[in-house]
Amino acid sequence: MVFKRHLFRRAVILGTGLIGGSVGLALKKNGFAAKVVGTSRHEASLRAALSMGAIDEAEMDIHKAIVGADLVVLASPVKVIQENIRDIARHLRRNCIVTDVGSTKVSVVHTAEKYFPPHVLFVGSHPMAGSEKSGVAHASADLFKGASVIMTPTSKTNRLARDKIKHLWTKFGADVSMMEPARHDEILAFVSHLPHLAAFAIMHAIPEEFLGFGSTGLKDTTRIAASSSKMWGDICLSNYRNVLRAVDGMAGSLAGLRKAIVDKDEEAVSQYFSQAKARREGMEKK
Amino acid sequence: MVFKRHLFRRAVILGTGLIGGSVGLALKKNGFAAKVVGTSRHEASLRAALSMGAIDEAEMDIHKAIVGADLVVLASPVKVIQENIRDIARHLRRNCIVTDVGSTKVSVVHTAEKYFPPHVLFVGSHPMAGSEKSGVAHASADLFKGASVIMTPTSKTNRLARDKIKHLWTKFGADVSMMEPARHDEILAFVSHLPHLAAFAIMHAIPEEFLGFGSTGLKDTTRIAASSSKMWGDICLSNYRNVLRAVDGMAGSLAGLRKAIVDKDEEAVSQYFSQAKARREGMEKK
Repeated sequence: MVFKRHLFRRAVILGTGLIGGSVGLALKKNGFAAKVVGTSRHEASLRAALSMGAIDEAEMDIHKAIVGADLVVLASPVKVIQENIRDIARHLRRNCIVTDVGSTKVSVVHTAEKYFPPHVLFVGSHPMAGSEKSGVAHASADLFKGASVIMTPTSKTNRLARDKIKHLWTKFGADVSMMEPARHDEILAFVSHLPHLAAFAIMHAIPEEFLGFGSTGLKDTTRIAASSSKMWGDICLSNYRNVLRAVDGMAGSLAGLRKAIVDKDEEAVSQYFSQAKARREGMEKK
Repeated sequence: MVFKRHLFRRAVILGTGLIGGSVGLALKKNGFAAKVVGTSRHEASLRAALSMGAIDEAEMDIHKAIVGADLVVLASPVKVIQENIRDIARHLRRNCIVTDVGSTKVSVVHTAEKYFPPHVLFVGSHPMAGSEKSGVAHASADLFKGASVIMTPTSKTNRLARDKIKHLWTKFGADVSMMEPARHDEILAFVSHLPHLAAFAIMHAIPEEFLGFGSTGLKDTTRIAASSSKMWGDICLSNYRNVLRAVDGMAGSLAGLRKAIVDKDEEAVSQYFSQAKARREGMEKK
């Protein structure tokens, strides 16, 4: 599909943090928007986004920001995204395309399909490009290069909105795949939420006076425990059924290992480790 | 303490893998040994160590290798180290200094103190410089630069042996600390063995068809699951009491988080994450 250079006249990013700021930089680098407007609850974040050139215009008032918008990107933690949807739903112009960057999709897509009127064209996105760093200071137009973006269109999704948003992410350098919101949340509970929760749990399990002896293994394994606790609280609670399944899977997996150790079953311990090692090495080849 | 340049005439490394090979390279770089002899069960590993210059002489027969040795470095997985000790104990010359690089210390030190006669001077070491990579191909004279080395002298340890081995590690660029073997094993169960086991357990918990969606968070968290499964089997079984305590600590920690999620207790979830985050950030400052 061929689109004209300025896909959008007024792109509005609600939440100018790491991801929102990077979307702004990438929109501008690709010339996709005649004007990029950013909003944030935090004035400092907004000022930083402006001075970095991630947005052309800063606005504290969401309702003022969205007037005339033909693209809105919801780039806050999941809970705030849902509040934003309820807040702006009735105030968007006809054919405004809306996407989000939330880490869980069922609750966001559900809220969007419930509150947006039919003339607002929503499609869910999840760019898997975060890190333990947060804030617009770490934003980059290249953040999405080589990253996976999962989009979650449903039977209600407008096809043009889907194609335009896919075009954006693809031009930002991402590999875009499409799946059902429920499937997204199930997969992410295991490949993303679980490792985060495990990292947090390891940090809790280690007696504080031992931490000074932690080496690269511990540091790498728990790097993501320095991630935003607010964001991860939101993710856990908005995807709690899948998260619980993943946590139970991990607990069951640890219990199996525990039994092999208690039994001093060298064969079982060794098999457990070599299977895990083979799976991990398989990931590098993909 | 001042030592002459050639601290040792014949240094013998039993096990020329990543750590053993790096010890060889570092001994030679520092001119600490007139001759470095290596042994391995794997001829290819021995040949590689020789061609990399990690050893001057390769020997498949351990008993031939140790004739005349005044330094022996036991650099195999913990179980093999213990076999080596029993094997060579009665064949070492008077005042030969022996150290090891094993990841657990109680079982190694116990075996050494049981089998070595009083004229063999043993002191335990644990250079925390491994990685998920193994094999002499990744060895480097600089592997120990900035790494922590924990030495575990006991009341039976000869002071000269302790000082000479400490001198070696220090000159290799490591930060050396001393502690009781039991204390070492307790601490390492939490800061090293637990993150490894958690990484293995995460790889088991994730359905195989989801692995392709794993992003940097998962990759970093489970990087160490690609570690040698043989070595980790040995570690778990030789330090099983502490390892079980650590695994139980992790399971309890996950159960606490699980409860907060089931209760949808935003405050508890957020507190759990922010405490873990603060601990993790504290580690970077050390």
